[in-house]
Amino acid sequence: MSRLEKQIDFVLEIDKLKGIVRRSFLVSGERYENSAEHSWHVSVLAHILAEHSDHEIDLMRVVKMLLIHDVVEIDAGDTYYFDTQGNSDKAERETKAAERLFGLLPEDQADEFREAWEEHEACQTNDARFANALDRFIPLLHNYYTQGRSWKKHRIRLDQVMKLQEPIEQGSKTLWEYTARVIQSAVDKGYLIT
Amino acid sequence: MSRLEKQIDFVLEIDKLKGIVRRSFLVSGERYENSAEHSWHVSVLAHILAEHSDHEIDLMRVVKMLLIHDVVEIDAGDTYYFDTQGNSDKAERETKAAERLFGLLPEDQADEFREAWEEHEACQTNDARFANALDRFIPLLHNYYTQGRSWKKHRIRLDQVMKLQEPIEQGSKTLWEYTARVIQSAVDKGYLIT
Repeated sequence: MSRLEKQIDFVLEIDKLKGIVRRSFLVSGERYENSAEHSWHVSVLAHILAEHSDHEIDLMRVVKMLLIHDVVEIDAGDTYYFDTQGNSDKAERETKAAERLFGLLPEDQADEFREAWEEHEACQTNDARFANALDRFIPLLHNYYTQGRSWKKHRIRLDQVMKLQEPIEQGSKTLWEYTARVIQSAVDKGYLIT
Repeated sequence: MSRLEKQIDFVLEIDKLKGIVRRSFLVSGERYENSAEHSWHVSVLAHILAEHSDHEIDLMRVVKMLLIHDVVEIDAGDTYYFDTQGNSDKAERETKAAERLFGLLPEDQADEFREAWEEHEACQTNDARFANALDRFIPLLHNYYTQGRSWKKHRIRLDQVMKLQEPIEQGSKTLWEYTARVIQSAVDKGYLIT
């Protein structure tokens, strides 16, 4: 296969991300959203909220991470944050998936995108911290604006949500303060049980 | 509303793009894709194929345009390229939509994103030419790998597809040559009528 053919092969394969269903509902409440839509939404969010990062970031790197951060779910599935069993072998399943999927690309790009994915997962750089903060922040909005529909459906409690949202504080104090207010309001309105 | 509240208001509003259905099928053929998924897919494509641009591009600007290029469809709907009537007032409907939607953002960002959208529409800069080339290229792949399903359904002919694909040549000779081969193969296999 030529270089271009490999690149197109990858692009065709990742179309499957449009079929990976997440646990968060659309803001309209109509249906669950899928991971491709979510990846788009959180990438736009990065452009809009970049100014609220507490650390200097390279927005292009942040967006690149966010665009491909869920691609591994094509093989590994979307592991719900609160699914203890699913999370026990998540890292192993996803590493295998990253190898196969990014491995469809020409070697230099396979390395480039696998590294971007690993950086996002490790969450140790400013860019990855901000990307992870946004990735945790957006489902909170979906939950809040659907009156806690996914929280209620999966009997999620306040302490679990607080733990899930923690990485937001590492990326942006402003977003963290906003998050705390949204969570308090969710409890007050009965969207979230304590 | 505070600056952050305006930004979040915009982010919540554009969730509706996930409900805008396009005329192209998923590669699996399962269903039509929506404009949010498409925007994600074409933004990844930009990262993968940037090296094939004939002109110097700023990849971050290209991706920014692609992430928001279809947002106007929330108000204006997805206008099928081959719908003559729909295209007669498309510009007017979309301009109005851009004003309302980007207008939800703080003023500086409203200007910034409306300008990015206008630049993409006008297709007169290197970044916009490459973005437009990719936006035309990806539905060709979807059509080809679903055996011309959308072409057949809407009785689209070779000359119409050729005209639709023309902007690819302005962005990338490499992609244009590949496009010509795919189209020839689609005709040979009976996916596309002449």
